[in-house]
Amino acid sequence: MVGIIMGSASDLNVMNEAAAVLQKLGVTYELNIVSAHRTPERMFEYAKSAHERGIRVIIAGAGGAAHLPGMVASLTALPVIGVPVKSSNSIDGWDSLLSIVQMPNGVPVATVALNAAQNAGILAAQILGTHDQELFKRLVAFKEELKTKVLKSVEELKA
Amino acid sequence: MVGIIMGSASDLNVMNEAAAVLQKLGVTYELNIVSAHRTPERMFEYAKSAHERGIRVIIAGAGGAAHLPGMVASLTALPVIGVPVKSSNSIDGWDSLLSIVQMPNGVPVATVALNAAQNAGILAAQILGTHDQELFKRLVAFKEELKTKVLKSVEELKA
Amino acid sequence: MVGIIMGSASDLNVMNEAAAVLQKLGVTYELNIVSAHRTPERMFEYAKSAHERGIRVIIAGAGGAAHLPGMVASLTALPVIGVPVKSSNSIDGWDSLLSIVQMPNGVPVATVALNAAQNAGILAAQILGTHDQELFKRLVAFKEELKTKVLKSVEELKA
Amino acid sequence: MVGIIMGSASDLNVMNEAAAVLQKLGVTYELNIVSAHRTPERMFEYAKSAHERGIRVIIAGAGGAAHLPGMVASLTALPVIGVPVKSSNSIDGWDSLLSIVQMPNGVPVATVALNAAQNAGILAAQILGTHDQELFKRLVAFKEELKTKVLKSVEELKA
Amino acid sequence: MVGIIMGSASDLNVMNEAAAVLQKLGVTYELNIVSAHRTPERMFEYAKSAHERGIRVIIAGAGGAAHLPGMVASLTALPVIGVPVKSSNSIDGWDSLLSIVQMPNGVPVATVALNAAQNAGILAAQILGTHDQELFKRLVAFKEELKTKVLKSVEELKA
Amino acid sequence: MVGIIMGSASDLNVMNEAAAVLQKLGVTYELNIVSAHRTPERMFEYAKSAHERGIRVIIAGAGGAAHLPGMVASLTALPVIGVPVKSSNSIDGWDSLLSIVQMPNGVPVATVALNAAQNAGILAAQILGTHDQELFKRLVAFKEELKTKVLKSVEELKA
Amino acid sequence: MVGIIMGSASDLNVMNEAAAVLQKLGVTYELNIVSAHRTPERMFEYAKSAHERGIRVIIAGAGGAAHLPGMVASLTALPVIGVPVKSSNSIDGWDSLLSIVQMPNGVPVATVALNAAQNAGILAAQILGTHDQELFKRLVAFKEELKTKVLKSVEELKA
Amino acid sequence: MVGIIMGSASDLNVMNEAAAVLQKLGVTYELNIVSAHRTPERMFEYAKSAHERGIRVIIAGAGGAAHLPGMVASLTALPVIGVPVKSSNSIDGWDSLLSIVQMPNGVPVATVALNAAQNAGILAAQILGTHDQELFKRLVAFKEELKTKVLKSVEELKA
Repeated sequence: MVGIIMGSASDLNVMNEAAAVLQKLGVTYELNIVSAHRTPERMFEYAKSAHERGIRVIIAGAGGAAHLPGMVASLTALPVIGVPVKSSNSIDGWDSLLSIVQMPNGVPVATVALNAAQNAGILAAQILGTHDQELFKRLVAFKEELKTKVLKSVEELKA
Repeated sequence: MVGIIMGSASDLNVMNEAAAVLQKLGVTYELNIVSAHRTPERMFEYAKSAHERGIRVIIAGAGGAAHLPGMVASLTALPVIGVPVKSSNSIDGWDSLLSIVQMPNGVPVATVALNAAQNAGILAAQILGTHDQELFKRLVAFKEELKTKVLKSVEELKA
Repeated sequence: MVGIIMGSASDLNVMNEAAAVLQKLGVTYELNIVSAHRTPERMFEYAKSAHERGIRVIIAGAGGAAHLPGMVASLTALPVIGVPVKSSNSIDGWDSLLSIVQMPNGVPVATVALNAAQNAGILAAQILGTHDQELFKRLVAFKEELKTKVLKSVEELKA
Repeated sequence: MVGIIMGSASDLNVMNEAAAVLQKLGVTYELNIVSAHRTPERMFEYAKSAHERGIRVIIAGAGGAAHLPGMVASLTALPVIGVPVKSSNSIDGWDSLLSIVQMPNGVPVATVALNAAQNAGILAAQILGTHDQELFKRLVAFKEELKTKVLKSVEELKA
Repeated sequence: MVGIIMGSASDLNVMNEAAAVLQKLGVTYELNIVSAHRTPERMFEYAKSAHERGIRVIIAGAGGAAHLPGMVASLTALPVIGVPVKSSNSIDGWDSLLSIVQMPNGVPVATVALNAAQNAGILAAQILGTHDQELFKRLVAFKEELKTKVLKSVEELKA
Repeated sequence: MVGIIMGSASDLNVMNEAAAVLQKLGVTYELNIVSAHRTPERMFEYAKSAHERGIRVIIAGAGGAAHLPGMVASLTALPVIGVPVKSSNSIDGWDSLLSIVQMPNGVPVATVALNAAQNAGILAAQILGTHDQELFKRLVAFKEELKTKVLKSVEELKA
Repeated sequence: MVGIIMGSASDLNVMNEAAAVLQKLGVTYELNIVSAHRTPERMFEYAKSAHERGIRVIIAGAGGAAHLPGMVASLTALPVIGVPVKSSNSIDGWDSLLSIVQMPNGVPVATVALNAAQNAGILAAQILGTHDQELFKRLVAFKEELKTKVLKSVEELKA
Repeated sequence: MVGIIMGSASDLNVMNEAAAVLQKLGVTYELNIVSAHRTPERMFEYAKSAHERGIRVIIAGAGGAAHLPGMVASLTALPVIGVPVKSSNSIDGWDSLLSIVQMPNGVPVATVALNAAQNAGILAAQILGTHDQELFKRLVAFKEELKTKVLKSVEELKA
């Protein structure tokens, strides 16, 4: 199971795309609001209990001084995917990106592009797909779909 | 008392300047290493017990994805001063600065300049000086000293 | 008492949030327009007389080449909180942020996030709370409120 | 098995840290030079055959206009970890970071910090650890080691 | 003939300006969608066969982690012009620009300004004009036209 | 007469180049240390009395949160030239540049390049040259000298 | 007389503010469109003949790769004021600012803030005011007006 | 023939790499110092006469406010390649890059990476190779050489 968390309900708009693509790929997930700065104890409990609750990958989205992904990564040995969110209090997204990706040695966060919750979902599926042949095949098929869409737009351009 | 903490022993070089200026200003302090990412539980305990242990202001220095100041601020109602450290794993200091200063509404960190631990110490003293007339006077004298040094360099230039 | 100042009436929209949160926390304040560049003498008088007029913390907001917080800090030993305002003449806020936070040794400005006047207000209250047990308790309660709001959004998400 | 690739022999210095930490964690790996821009066909073959050759995670390091991680990710459904290298032809690392992390929807790259090949190795192990209890335990132990090192530096500071 | 390619149909709006100016300058072209990340094999075939299909210059537009121009340049000895597109997933265009222009030694991409597909078209014509006297004359005339437009606006200003 | 001021003796190295070129161009000047943040009263007096003391142009150099040029400009109607100094406490010069150039409406600072004190001197001479035919001629001759130096390097390249 | 030039009629909106403030200050000016890139010969003639046509200061506004101010400065010994315009083809104004302010030794451009044509006008007046007592007095009065406006907004705030 | 020009003898170190690769590829060239800001007339003559003197492509390198490539492009219909040089007066190369690449509509400059004079030489050869089969073959061979070098480093890694 994939745990999707975000710092605030205002990030739901972005983070729902992670849920949508996981659903499409047949991966179970749970969606939650866990604020590093407003509910630090809740974040601690979430991260520390994640593994035993059956979560295998965590996707964490946050904006501005985005500490949620890195703090969760400090509290669990599960892989943590960070989604820099261009929130209203962000300087064009630079703060979100840098405070997620620039983690110190020992505590990685797998960072995706600004607002790229869909890619976070795909990456989580790829991680689970390393030991799930059926999921891996669905991911291969998903990539084929992307290709097909491009080829369709090629046809439309010609027409 | 002022609590000075930093993420790693490699930040000591910078953070000692906070201690030095507090000593000069007659403010007691304790110096500690508390890593947000490597010892998150220790950070929790430190921040949650700080007030009852008699700490009145916390100075926290960190580099790269610098979560220590903001996380400590989330765990205590004491004022927290953040020192962005230009550590070896930092992109010219931008990551340290942005991940400290761009805190969300509700959880401020009083951020000083890159590597400016001395200013963090002075600011801590100013905070305590709001209710300590003697300390306030020492701060006024400290400002006079700065002035005197400039005027001395003015004289040297003329000579 | 907290002194809130800003460079221009156009900053009122942002800076009123500092006043609002101080009011909520039961801290008295005065709101004023003091332009470093258009009324430098007024700024001098404001800063030099602030302490004896009973002000204990100054919050100064400014945009672009934002000199107000730093200049006020040079003229008083009181703690000064700087709010970088993303004004119309600012380059995405970078100029406001850097010209407030990057103060030289000896003259700190406690800088908060871009437009984060609310956080400036909270920080001012935290500073006063270092010697005011009742205010400190209200700050602890304020943090609980933040937590409650997040938990409420958690419930809404489940529903 | 983890496949570690880099665009040039000059990246070996950085990328060897990924190998070192994988060795420490008991994860097999192969190290290879695969240039997206100088040996594009080789990159194609590498990426397309990786899964059937038993590779489960790919770590790709590159600098400047760093296309290797993203292109490999376009050619395989395996998770790809990107290491932005601050190479001699890079503008302070910004180009390396942005050209790796800002991938379009559908093709994620799990990006770590500038030059953070060690973290790439740890992340690869975490990915494999999602289905390997023994490896997961070694990762938990590795985190404990980090903690112990910090606590040792705490003791040294006191002494 | 000039080959104009772009990563996605959403770039058509920008890239059509390259086509328009080539048409105006009497240079034949073909317009195509070729995604580096979604149709990497198609990109390979396009680039490898371009020379023998009679293409003499390639214009490639892409946004975000924009790998199309550089990858095409790695696969052909034809000159490749890169157009950084400020797409919806771009950080103010910085990622598009840096991931196109900062190519390593041996594989240049002739980069034009952000969204400057018209200039890419003119540059392609200039390249062909190095051996086509008639085209060169049309380019000289085109520059005269630009001049005339400015002089007309000079007159309008006086009026 | 041109007044050259700087925030600290550590800026002398850079600012002496303004003096040197003024000397060469036969323009009188005085060199002074005036710190906006450490000697604000001195800065006030300097700026307010400059005109009546016969100063016609002020050159002010400062680094980091560089407030000296803008504050002096707020206190006098004389033209003020600002030199952003890449001091030790500066973030690659960005803070110095932005806090000098981004002045609000009504209070301009004539900003030159990072560390370009020589250009500040030339600009001051150009300003005085608007009403001094002999100085204007010396400036024309100075430009010829620049040309001659380039042409000499052209000859050396041929040899 | 002040010569105001700009690269394109689209800059008129911004540059008219320079004219407006000069009119207010009683300084004569002429407004012109002179494109460095589309009418280079016209720019040459303009710059080379400016002094003998009675122009004493030149204000040049341009956006993107803004070469007009610097090139004009290379062709005349008159002081040149550069206005970085945030034109439609600019990356948030950074290109305009840097390509105007970062002039090499020997050829200064007096750069003002982004879009700050009003300040360019005031600076031109200040330059002429160095030898025109009446104009200097009007500038002093202009500064008083700025002050009065601020004080009026202070009154409005109180009301 | 390819014309290689640069703003200053100090750029020779970088720009010689363009000459070296052209020599290797059997393309004739001439190397020259032409300063846009110190010898504008010389630049005019160079650019205006380039075509009739048999030059087919111009490579122009410059640093800081780098106007040489763009101004030359405004004066000729030949393709102009710009090399942003990270000169001593540059802000980490950003000014050089932006003032070369961000040209307005109508006047393209084919920009390569920071200091990438070698790539400028290769690009010039590719441009001439569009109509010179022998040169095109040498370029194909050059690309094979790059590949061979990588494969050799692959072998060395295995050994």
